[in-house]
Amino acid sequence: MNTNLAVPREFTDEEKEALYKAIYLRRDVREHFLHTPIPEPVLRRVLDAAHHAGSVGFMQPWTFIIIRSSEIKAQVKGLFDQANQEAAQVFEGERHDLYSRLKLEGILESPVNICVTCDPTRNGPHVLGRHTVPQTDVYSTCCAIQNLWLAARVEGIGVGWVSILDYTALRRLLDVPEHVIPVAYLCMGYVDEFLPQPQLEKVGWLPRASLDDAIFYERWGKENAD
Amino acid sequence: MNTNLAVPREFTDEEKEALYKAIYLRRDVREHFLHTPIPEPVLRRVLDAAHHAGSVGFMQPWTFIIIRSSEIKAQVKGLFDQANQEAAQVFEGERHDLYSRLKLEGILESPVNICVTCDPTRNGPHVLGRHTVPQTDVYSTCCAIQNLWLAARVEGIGVGWVSILDYTALRRLLDVPEHVIPVAYLCMGYVDEFLPQPQLEKVGWLPRASLDDAIFYERWGKENAD
Repeated sequence: MNTNLAVPREFTDEEKEALYKAIYLRRDVREHFLHTPIPEPVLRRVLDAAHHAGSVGFMQPWTFIIIRSSEIKAQVKGLFDQANQEAAQVFEGERHDLYSRLKLEGILESPVNICVTCDPTRNGPHVLGRHTVPQTDVYSTCCAIQNLWLAARVEGIGVGWVSILDYTALRRLLDVPEHVIPVAYLCMGYVDEFLPQPQLEKVGWLPRASLDDAIFYERWGKENAD
Repeated sequence: MNTNLAVPREFTDEEKEALYKAIYLRRDVREHFLHTPIPEPVLRRVLDAAHHAGSVGFMQPWTFIIIRSSEIKAQVKGLFDQANQEAAQVFEGERHDLYSRLKLEGILESPVNICVTCDPTRNGPHVLGRHTVPQTDVYSTCCAIQNLWLAARVEGIGVGWVSILDYTALRRLLDVPEHVIPVAYLCMGYVDEFLPQPQLEKVGWLPRASLDDAIFYERWGKENAD
């Protein structure tokens, strides 16, 4: 570590390492959930972490619907089963077989489900910084979700993002107003294991890309920094 | 802390606190940048943190364009000035005056600018989990940006997200292909100060919302957990 930079040193090396550890050990969790309830203060810490994400024009457009009802979970599971059956059809041969063997949600087994929504109308029609890119409200909501995911990880709580759902039907099911966007449906609970690798990497669905292949310099396509 | 839960305890209390500290002290930075260059290994750590976000179907749709050229920065600054002049017009009276006094970008002063893009075509036409919500590619990219933001924070690096730009013009300027989405334009550099509060909260643009107002139970509108 370069120690002669005249900048505030508020994080110790141990604290820096803890952040990277959380980032590297975070997983999208669909199995290994325990029935252990999440204590209210822990859930609140995780949600408060989400709530402290940055947001465009400080609009804080997110809402968290905490779902524990078995009845609602069962209805959401029904939406997943339907969407997943359709989704499976686009894959053929070996890939279809592999897809069918994957567990892609933990709706019923996880003690807490959370639907994270974004209200594009929050704080009035003119939000600072949203004039040119209106989607920044949803972008902010996703940043909040990543905070939630990392906070849950350090608490020992697995989080799985279920995207295989008809989100319009989900909105109706949860009485979410027409103008509000359901961005994510998360399954959360303590787990007995976090996989060492992402599930889809482990089963050979797709490899981890090289970071080098994800970097350009100055303009698209330029692979070296002069 | 509840110590009798039979779950893996991989994070110490100190490590947990370090994550929350990063989340609470992260800021959207538009001033206080130093000219100190960001060493390559540090920049790489921060980008690798971004690269380890979860992504729908493990598609890893992001690309990072690292910009240090003064010429390109000046052109982006030109885009900002134009968009900002237009954006200011929507605010009236005192709010217009306050808006005009706010510094909303640090394009020229920050040593590194990064354009984060999302390629919706990466890893083929059928990405696992993207069938029902195609925007999950951009959602994943935003999760990567939040990782970057937090990693930068623990390194003492400020990050400011500039959304007040014509992103179509930005795409052309950086030779980004038509089908690729420029999601964020970030200004990054060591700073001599991180504000104790978000800038827009400090100047009274908007207050921090209460977490309670951002939580419902079971369905939209239900404020108590039975």
